[in-house]
Amino acid sequence: MTTNIDVASDRRQRSADTELRRRAKAVVPNGMYGHQNMNAFPAIPQFISRSRGARLWDADGNEYVDLMCSWGPVILGHCDPVVEEAAERQRRQGDCLNGPAPVMVELAEAMVDTVADADWAMFAKNGTDATTMCCTIARAATGRKMILVAEGAYHGAAPWCTPFPAGVTAADRANLLQFRFNDIGSVRAAVGEHADDIAAIIVSPFRHDAGFDQELVDPTFAHDVRAYCDEIGAALILDDVRAGFRIHHGGSWEPLGVPVDLTPWSKSIANGYALAAVTGTDRYRDAAGGIFVTGSFWMGAVDMAAGLATISELGRRDSVSRMRDLGVRLRDGVVESASKWGFDVHYTGPSQMPNLLFANDTDYEMSVAFSAEAQARGVYVHPKHNWFVSAAMTDGDLDMALTGLDGAFSALRVRYLNS
Amino acid sequence: MTTNIDVASDRRQRSADTELRRRAKAVVPNGMYGHQNMNAFPAIPQFISRSRGARLWDADGNEYVDLMCSWGPVILGHCDPVVEEAAERQRRQGDCLNGPAPVMVELAEAMVDTVADADWAMFAKNGTDATTMCCTIARAATGRKMILVAEGAYHGAAPWCTPFPAGVTAADRANLLQFRFNDIGSVRAAVGEHADDIAAIIVSPFRHDAGFDQELVDPTFAHDVRAYCDEIGAALILDDVRAGFRIHHGGSWEPLGVPVDLTPWSKSIANGYALAAVTGTDRYRDAAGGIFVTGSFWMGAVDMAAGLATISELGRRDSVSRMRDLGVRLRDGVVESASKWGFDVHYTGPSQMPNLLFANDTDYEMSVAFSAEAQARGVYVHPKHNWFVSAAMTDGDLDMALTGLDGAFSALRVRYLNS
Repeated sequence: MTTNIDVASDRRQRSADTELRRRAKAVVPNGMYGHQNMNAFPAIPQFISRSRGARLWDADGNEYVDLMCSWGPVILGHCDPVVEEAAERQRRQGDCLNGPAPVMVELAEAMVDTVADADWAMFAKNGTDATTMCCTIARAATGRKMILVAEGAYHGAAPWCTPFPAGVTAADRANLLQFRFNDIGSVRAAVGEHADDIAAIIVSPFRHDAGFDQELVDPTFAHDVRAYCDEIGAALILDDVRAGFRIHHGGSWEPLGVPVDLTPWSKSIANGYALAAVTGTDRYRDAAGGIFVTGSFWMGAVDMAAGLATISELGRRDSVSRMRDLGVRLRDGVVESASKWGFDVHYTGPSQMPNLLFANDTDYEMSVAFSAEAQARGVYVHPKHNWFVSAAMTDGDLDMALTGLDGAFSALRVRYLNS
Repeated sequence: MTTNIDVASDRRQRSADTELRRRAKAVVPNGMYGHQNMNAFPAIPQFISRSRGARLWDADGNEYVDLMCSWGPVILGHCDPVVEEAAERQRRQGDCLNGPAPVMVELAEAMVDTVADADWAMFAKNGTDATTMCCTIARAATGRKMILVAEGAYHGAAPWCTPFPAGVTAADRANLLQFRFNDIGSVRAAVGEHADDIAAIIVSPFRHDAGFDQELVDPTFAHDVRAYCDEIGAALILDDVRAGFRIHHGGSWEPLGVPVDLTPWSKSIANGYALAAVTGTDRYRDAAGGIFVTGSFWMGAVDMAAGLATISELGRRDSVSRMRDLGVRLRDGVVESASKWGFDVHYTGPSQMPNLLFANDTDYEMSVAFSAEAQARGVYVHPKHNWFVSAAMTDGDLDMALTGLDGAFSALRVRYLNS
């Protein structure tokens, strides 16, 4: 159902994208991999050439208001001048060096200053590095092996957590137990007789499994899972890789008053530069210092300088408030358009990271068509993954987005509601 | 034994490094982690501020000829102007985007053109990402679970391969079997009755385990392990993360005429920009296209542009020959100095990636002292890890390195040989 959708995008130039897809198919397995694999969505442009602020341009030069923000990393806007200047200043000195640059200490100090539950920080490149490090630290600290994960939650793409099983062995998942998000009873049931062997519970700040309605955390659940971790002596890992610094200028559960032990970060902490981090409390400091994790580029000083500038600017500009406000106006507009054109939609999650699905659209046919129609009208959204708002959006960008999305509903009405 | 070594370095300014170490200790577990943890070597500067060509400067402004090349990544020299210009050109367009930039296709095409055994390429951020992906692809392709690894070999720092066990569970290693490098009998013995369940044999192009003499591959072993993989239907993975593009402009076993199935790359393929890659043959294309691996920054276009420029420049400048020639002159000079001052040293491995150990120095006391004396004379080497030569070294850089290392032997003679 995802092919041959006849959308307005046909009026847009697509020849460069088509040609790049053809060349990629020859030298990249399946033409692309991971979350960037848009082969299932031919109407969505695969290759992107340029970006600035809240706009981007595909390989054919078509312009979009960006509601994906590079799947989260871009939070202050593409090529933010303050971040770029900090990165360039470090680049003139050096990037990948024989040891860390002084900026590494400044960045660790900034994380500790900014995040309530951070007594220390470590840095890496991938969100998966950070989630995996948290599990390893928890195991080292507790001498236990099992980790509780929520059913359907995404914590990265290493064999222990990748959502698709090809090439994964049973041993890779042997020490995982599953619970249901927001269901403390399911946590207790999953633990069962293993209480003495639970190293950690890893949980995302809200339920943001791709392809499903998002679900905000029940504050009672957050408090209960904290108390239960204390009861059984397990670490509470809050996976803030996707939501970190978009929900709160600090850990995403700080507003709930729920402290956590270990937090993996990535995506938006360096506005698109490749950086991940783990923060933790003093209780886990020795264990964190005792594990061996590393990478050739983990000390990359330019990425760290970008991270330091990003965290500072997010605070200085009060960007979380700005994104929340923009997100509320986006939600109000989209929900109004859906209603106006007669669609029953589920618009879920925090306003800065909304997810749009259509009721009874189990094979995503309508959301794929909607995204294609939105692309054709210059609004970049994804049919199955939550969107991201950046602080760079101007009121004009928001108006352009709302107009394009309204047009997409209008086009869908012709096709699906026959009027 | 590694503390309080009284070296000439005491004459060098160290206050900035000392202060940064103090601050790091407060906000980073153990003050530093992974291979960058220099806490065991107080005489070696931890923090590096600046680099250019074959020179670098520590946080106190002390200058060094660089024989570590950021642990391998820097191959054309720090801040190579051609690579920097290519990166900057891409940066002006965009870096971390909603999809890959066109340069991703060009880079994959360049890898396929350059590497004999590459029919396709995929990209990631860490060497560990790439070695892990190769194992996953081999498992997906064969439907088998076990991987053979050489005893003591380093293939990354994820739980399945990190050299230190803290936080690692038995399940993480449940599907590994071990053989001895260059010993085909040990390969057959390790496989034993598991022949039908071996997904892959992973091997480095030569033995480069840190802290040990390096060992070049016996060409007969390379041919035998290839034939044995074919016999049992397993993939041959050549881990070229550390050596790739320094030994040969292509795969490191190409000169031996030994084809391999899957190759992880990282370190030097982008001259210090954060990039890793997997290449493979058509036989493994479908499996590679069927696994789910990804990362938020894996499509970073600037790193890819740097990689494309690096691979192109390495070929155009015939950099492997230059590094080999420099390495031979370095080896000849170091071996001559050692002999002149009366030291029995083991100088092993390819000339471009040499390893220096002292005979009967089981606790590395002499190699630590030697490194400290070398640092004090403006030569950056490591006491336990192989060194790396870059193509940026001038004859003057080489002379400065040889003079400094000769001086280090001279200082050691006073201490250890009492004359």
